[in-house]
Amino acid sequence: MSLLLGHIRRTPLLWLLAFVPVVIASEQLRPEAHTLLFLLSVLAIVPLAALLSHATESVAAKTGDAVGGLLNATLGNLTELVIAFTALQAGQYMLVKASIAGAIVTNSLFMLGASFLLGGLAHHEQEFNRVSARLQASLLFLATIALLIPSAVSRADLTDGSGFMQQLSVGLALLLIAAYGLSMLYSLKTHREMFASAEHSDGGVAPWPAGLALATLAGATVGVALVSEIFVESVQKAAETFGMTPAFVGFIVVALVGGAAEMASAFSAARKNHLDLSVGIALGSASQIALFVAPVLVLLSYVIGPTPMDLQFWPGAVVMILIAALTASLVTNSGRSTWFVGVLVLMVYLIFAMTLYLLPPQAR
Amino acid sequence: MSLLLGHIRRTPLLWLLAFVPVVIASEQLRPEAHTLLFLLSVLAIVPLAALLSHATESVAAKTGDAVGGLLNATLGNLTELVIAFTALQAGQYMLVKASIAGAIVTNSLFMLGASFLLGGLAHHEQEFNRVSARLQASLLFLATIALLIPSAVSRADLTDGSGFMQQLSVGLALLLIAAYGLSMLYSLKTHREMFASAEHSDGGVAPWPAGLALATLAGATVGVALVSEIFVESVQKAAETFGMTPAFVGFIVVALVGGAAEMASAFSAARKNHLDLSVGIALGSASQIALFVAPVLVLLSYVIGPTPMDLQFWPGAVVMILIAALTASLVTNSGRSTWFVGVLVLMVYLIFAMTLYLLPPQAR
Amino acid sequence: MSLLLGHIRRTPLLWLLAFVPVVIASEQLRPEAHTLLFLLSVLAIVPLAALLSHATESVAAKTGDAVGGLLNATLGNLTELVIAFTALQAGQYMLVKASIAGAIVTNSLFMLGASFLLGGLAHHEQEFNRVSARLQASLLFLATIALLIPSAVSRADLTDGSGFMQQLSVGLALLLIAAYGLSMLYSLKTHREMFASAEHSDGGVAPWPAGLALATLAGATVGVALVSEIFVESVQKAAETFGMTPAFVGFIVVALVGGAAEMASAFSAARKNHLDLSVGIALGSASQIALFVAPVLVLLSYVIGPTPMDLQFWPGAVVMILIAALTASLVTNSGRSTWFVGVLVLMVYLIFAMTLYLLPPQAR
Repeated sequence: MSLLLGHIRRTPLLWLLAFVPVVIASEQLRPEAHTLLFLLSVLAIVPLAALLSHATESVAAKTGDAVGGLLNATLGNLTELVIAFTALQAGQYMLVKASIAGAIVTNSLFMLGASFLLGGLAHHEQEFNRVSARLQASLLFLATIALLIPSAVSRADLTDGSGFMQQLSVGLALLLIAAYGLSMLYSLKTHREMFASAEHSDGGVAPWPAGLALATLAGATVGVALVSEIFVESVQKAAETFGMTPAFVGFIVVALVGGAAEMASAFSAARKNHLDLSVGIALGSASQIALFVAPVLVLLSYVIGPTPMDLQFWPGAVVMILIAALTASLVTNSGRSTWFVGVLVLMVYLIFAMTLYLLPPQAR
Repeated sequence: MSLLLGHIRRTPLLWLLAFVPVVIASEQLRPEAHTLLFLLSVLAIVPLAALLSHATESVAAKTGDAVGGLLNATLGNLTELVIAFTALQAGQYMLVKASIAGAIVTNSLFMLGASFLLGGLAHHEQEFNRVSARLQASLLFLATIALLIPSAVSRADLTDGSGFMQQLSVGLALLLIAAYGLSMLYSLKTHREMFASAEHSDGGVAPWPAGLALATLAGATVGVALVSEIFVESVQKAAETFGMTPAFVGFIVVALVGGAAEMASAFSAARKNHLDLSVGIALGSASQIALFVAPVLVLLSYVIGPTPMDLQFWPGAVVMILIAALTASLVTNSGRSTWFVGVLVLMVYLIFAMTLYLLPPQAR
Repeated sequence: MSLLLGHIRRTPLLWLLAFVPVVIASEQLRPEAHTLLFLLSVLAIVPLAALLSHATESVAAKTGDAVGGLLNATLGNLTELVIAFTALQAGQYMLVKASIAGAIVTNSLFMLGASFLLGGLAHHEQEFNRVSARLQASLLFLATIALLIPSAVSRADLTDGSGFMQQLSVGLALLLIAAYGLSMLYSLKTHREMFASAEHSDGGVAPWPAGLALATLAGATVGVALVSEIFVESVQKAAETFGMTPAFVGFIVVALVGGAAEMASAFSAARKNHLDLSVGIALGSASQIALFVAPVLVLLSYVIGPTPMDLQFWPGAVVMILIAALTASLVTNSGRSTWFVGVLVLMVYLIFAMTLYLLPPQAR
């Protein structure tokens, strides 16, 4: 316990944990203050995500590479999963899908691009293990095809009402989960030597003992779940106050909040010239959301949602995911990076963000 | 003749030749038994295609590389050409186009992916000549652009009735055939040294004498022509019995039957670590169909079809061909392969097959 | 002055300068002879563009690499800029956009492909600096995304009337100009050593003294401005006489005329085995038009045009630019080229040209 408190004392980001009780109390006292609740919940989610991420790494460090990789992969996007889960229960499928698409795009463009830019400003030219980057980019590309094909193949007016889209979504979800499982067998078991140079350094921080790590994992998950509920309820109304379109909120704001902790790790690794780790976090997160979080949410919607959720995304979102996957694939192909590569990737993200910010709400 | 019989005796696949007389007799006796005729014709086409493929290789081995390559390229997809020719005469343009698109997609995804998977299960990592793979992938990409542009550039409602699509189709067909001819000049004549490492081994089987090879070629072609007619007539009705959509039959079933013999060769080469040959068969077949078979069918439709056939494909088919070309280009870019690359490529194919299987018939 | 006259005497292309006074006189005498004026203005623009290009290089050679590169980049597409500027003032936004899209496609496909083909016919295999080619291809790809996203994200029927498309166009224009500026900082300042092998040889012609170069620059710009006005006025009517569609004129004819001088330099460099220079001119021109000329025209339209011009292109044009960027990126990826690579790239251009030539006018 004193280890946990010491860790919190040394990490200024974690001081924000004070906002967790504040936001829960505010929600009881003033449930109609959406803008306040939105701001408080953002401030509370960020340190919880950081805590979750550190606890996951500690558990992973204890269990050895194979199980650790599995844990890291499954728990790494726990924040996104919990936020999406909360929105799923509320039947807010538009928000669920926007946050999935937004998380994929934000991780593979903003997190990757900013890592390249920050790393490139500190170092003239950086190298990274392109075998690993290629695997993640290929998985992302596969998921994009799965999201693209349903709308490309069928005429929009025929898909409603028929069971086609739901059967197809379940089938695609199972295929994506299978591909994800096989990718772990491949990178952690049969061809692990190819992925070796992606050093699993966690920035010099010593891992916690297993008991503390597991307890923190459980506590932080409960915390994220409680705060996400407030976040999901307040985000749309707060956005209107700020003049943001719902598309911008789902795509950009939720994704940046959900990924805040991972971004901190990726950027710090890039500045320390551990670009392998940055690229792994950015593209690994994006492909996990596409191949694991999204399909699991589709399957879960049969159990907990008011109606089944399908995998059919708004065409604009599919185009953005496709461009993000293609961009990530092109820029990681050479295994080298400079600051300007980061600028290019960030520019693509800015084009998306600007378009979504200006988009009139009824145009979706 | 005894050489041919000996070859048949040693090759269990060729014992299926017994079904050739069976299917022809059945068609005379019970022309309304569509499901039975469909199954028998599939069983009869597979060994005929294998015989055709072996005879072509023998003729090619006699004539030297340049003419042999030409022959191999022109006759390699004879089965597909004869099936499509039969459907063309019957005016079944939907089936012709579906089988062209399906053959391109099946060869560049299923045949390539399964070769990578089977080869990768037997060998840890395999290499192949990427110059040759790149050429085929580029040709495929060019053909995709030719199929894509007409529908991308013109509004759907304006293309009917006007002669635009027909003039454009003839022009594009001539361009594609010219590109195909120049690609052979390039790979067999001016820059043949680049393509050298793709060893022209035919799996250790000794070639036949020219007379036997030519006679077998003629006989097998007549056989394929007779059986394809029964196949084309029965396939749609049989598919309904099995609950398959017409799209699934045209894309998947016809393509798998038409390419069965080449697949056997490609898979066997991959397991023997001759991945050059597998990639060459898979992508070579796909680009031949796109740049030679499809344009020839468009031009032939002016002579033998009831009305001219154009090159405008169903948009879903164009998207699938585009994704197949892009996937083939991405995975062959590195010149290396492991089992998981095969899984990824097969997953793309499974996504297509599943979508077509579930697609309601009126949605096309 | 005698230096300039000597240069003109030694360069047969510049003898065409005699057509400059001829076309201006003809326009005064017979303003209704559109076909004649069109032909004369084409004959007069080509030598003016060549003169402009040589003067720009001379100024660039004097000022050193950094400023010279900036000048070259800004003035290199002066002809296209002046033609588009004249059309902008006349409110012919369709022609402005068609000529922007056409210039991008013509430079990245026709100029690049013909350079590869001509170089490849003279040399068995050629190499070029792929770092530089990749940068230009990436910039082109970024611009394509900026042109693609507005139409992909919004439904066509909602974009008219609302201010969305105009705000977005201004925002995208500023982003593209920023990316262009940063790309020059990158290639001329922070990472100039990577781009070193692209020798800045101007074909052995000695540069002019600064005074002559600046005077020629001014004179030729005025000449181009005068003649372009006649060209823009006559081109559409003349095209009808020749049976060309407006799409074909805007995309193909204007782009070929505007880029004639640069093409002459690129082709001559390719034959001399300076493929670095050819690729740099072709892709550099294309990315300058996309990232500098097009955004500047959007911003200028607020000052000089009758109404603001947006960045929304006809969907067929966006598809062509996308395919051109993708093709340029794929073929320059290896840093090697042979004649057949040129054939492939030219085939893509021919597919576009043929489609535009046959396209019925109302289909746009």
